[in-house]
Amino acid sequence: MATSQALSSAKESFPASPSLKGLTDFVASDMAKVNAAILTNMQSDVPLIPQLAQHLLAAGGKRLRPMLTLVSAKLCGVENDRPVGLAACVEFIHTATLLHDDVVDESDLRRGQNSANAVWGNQASVLVGDFLFSRAFELMVADGSLKVLGILSATSARIAEGEVQQLTTVQDLSTTKEIYLEVIGAKTAALFAAATQIGAAVAERPETEEQTLKAYGYNLGMTFQLVDDVLDYMGDQAQVGKTVGDDFAQSKLTLPVILVHQYADASEKKFLERTIAQGEQASDDLPQMQALLTKHKILEKMRDDITHYADNARAALDTFPDSEAKAHMLEAIDFCVDRVF
Amino acid sequence: MATSQALSSAKESFPASPSLKGLTDFVASDMAKVNAAILTNMQSDVPLIPQLAQHLLAAGGKRLRPMLTLVSAKLCGVENDRPVGLAACVEFIHTATLLHDDVVDESDLRRGQNSANAVWGNQASVLVGDFLFSRAFELMVADGSLKVLGILSATSARIAEGEVQQLTTVQDLSTTKEIYLEVIGAKTAALFAAATQIGAAVAERPETEEQTLKAYGYNLGMTFQLVDDVLDYMGDQAQVGKTVGDDFAQSKLTLPVILVHQYADASEKKFLERTIAQGEQASDDLPQMQALLTKHKILEKMRDDITHYADNARAALDTFPDSEAKAHMLEAIDFCVDRVF
Repeated sequence: MATSQALSSAKESFPASPSLKGLTDFVASDMAKVNAAILTNMQSDVPLIPQLAQHLLAAGGKRLRPMLTLVSAKLCGVENDRPVGLAACVEFIHTATLLHDDVVDESDLRRGQNSANAVWGNQASVLVGDFLFSRAFELMVADGSLKVLGILSATSARIAEGEVQQLTTVQDLSTTKEIYLEVIGAKTAALFAAATQIGAAVAERPETEEQTLKAYGYNLGMTFQLVDDVLDYMGDQAQVGKTVGDDFAQSKLTLPVILVHQYADASEKKFLERTIAQGEQASDDLPQMQALLTKHKILEKMRDDITHYADNARAALDTFPDSEAKAHMLEAIDFCVDRVF
Repeated sequence: MATSQALSSAKESFPASPSLKGLTDFVASDMAKVNAAILTNMQSDVPLIPQLAQHLLAAGGKRLRPMLTLVSAKLCGVENDRPVGLAACVEFIHTATLLHDDVVDESDLRRGQNSANAVWGNQASVLVGDFLFSRAFELMVADGSLKVLGILSATSARIAEGEVQQLTTVQDLSTTKEIYLEVIGAKTAALFAAATQIGAAVAERPETEEQTLKAYGYNLGMTFQLVDDVLDYMGDQAQVGKTVGDDFAQSKLTLPVILVHQYADASEKKFLERTIAQGEQASDDLPQMQALLTKHKILEKMRDDITHYADNARAALDTFPDSEAKAHMLEAIDFCVDRVF
């Protein structure tokens, strides 16, 4: 298949396949504590809550966001357990947005399992999301830092804004790349930025250092989401654990669509009008869309953007002296890029 | 109609019709500031957010919960503007739960308007609810009290627990009165309790006083919800501004249903099996259910419970010296009871 070829030829340009293994090992003992904190704090006398929460939280996932809080705190020399509780908060907020996104997305696959929504329905997804979100704030209160509470409440508001903005761009072919970048900046990169920023906040480092780590997280999050949006058209379902074609089925205006639309000829524009603007799709439309991505070299065109944000993330770490933590934070960038290239 | 007769005969036993006018006038200048804070803080660069939030927030409603924060603070002698911001938080949290409840309820009427969900869909309701919820925590951070943050984050978790528990009792005729009281204690009374408790928390009053005001709010909230659940079967749609028969249509196990089931004969139990347990309803089932409520004198049977909580709310105020604030807090109890009797 044409897209698979594009994928493998792109992959060949990198000699080795970066992984999260180094980072995962580095924070393993703290992550065990984070997982214990997650398990403890998702409990409730109402049995459906831990049942449903476990469906997502026990499924594991990469746990990239809480790992970023832990490694950022280590980079800043924190040696106490405060980052553990805050990393659990970050994962709770992320999980709450996934649960609420299930209502939004009608997605059938999430981390390779049936989505919580498909099993328990919209109502339970919304309410258990609310519970985890509230629990996150209870945990922050227990930690006692108004600064962290400020960062994560502002971030949560921004995530919601990004998701609503995305909602208003669905099926709208006039959506610009600028608006798209705003949307993913809010709905994804903001939480990456908060996750790394609170690592520095806990260390009570100077404001400049905090902002630098925030910039690392933001640019890593942008890299992650750009790649994710490519994988939604080009990924291997078994490998990435999400439904390929979800964004297309929902007529989302992600960058691949925006770029195809920009370079499309008249008949291709008609195709986009029907499948995206009108949302009328037949079973062979996804392969045709994938063929358009290949024809117009969309992956190559997006490579510049992905590289731009990845480079910014790397540059943000320049001011920190070399350390094991820094090395793993650099690896995380390579890992995010490598999911597609 | 039999139920209307029961309603008016019950009403006659009270000489005058208590209203919220005294309380409303007493806090009017502060409520103007609360409304301004609500308007300011629901703004966003994403236009759909204020549009949708306004649909609920500008519709007005009674604003009972924020008024309770204001009057409780006045009872405790607070003279600064902190209660204003916190009252806005309470209303934001309440509005967020209404928006998320719209997803849950598929309710068509909310405060006499089309529900936000019916107009904008599930996705927007969930996300704008998330936005308002996050904004509430941002406002609390700006206020700077970890105590208030602790009260409202724990309350939000409890509300979600109550809503999930309610979800698990839907269509379940074995639901007991005890479970029902737990559910409404969490989903409704907890926010009333928090609204009044933070009035004392802002005043930095002794813990006993705070707990006393919390008890007032809790018992007022229980009174309010018990009456609300009666009105869902017996209210006048134009007067109460909510759809009569909503709970029945959704086969919710509210106390009226639990009590009817307790006293039902064999054929009436069959009727409940079909309409509630199986959720199979025809157009003349609601009038039949209302007739059962009248036949089994359910309103009279619930009067004891309602009076119990109303008396507890009154008793909680005993320790406070007489004041204008206290008088209006006593009126609020009468108002809640009077909606049905």
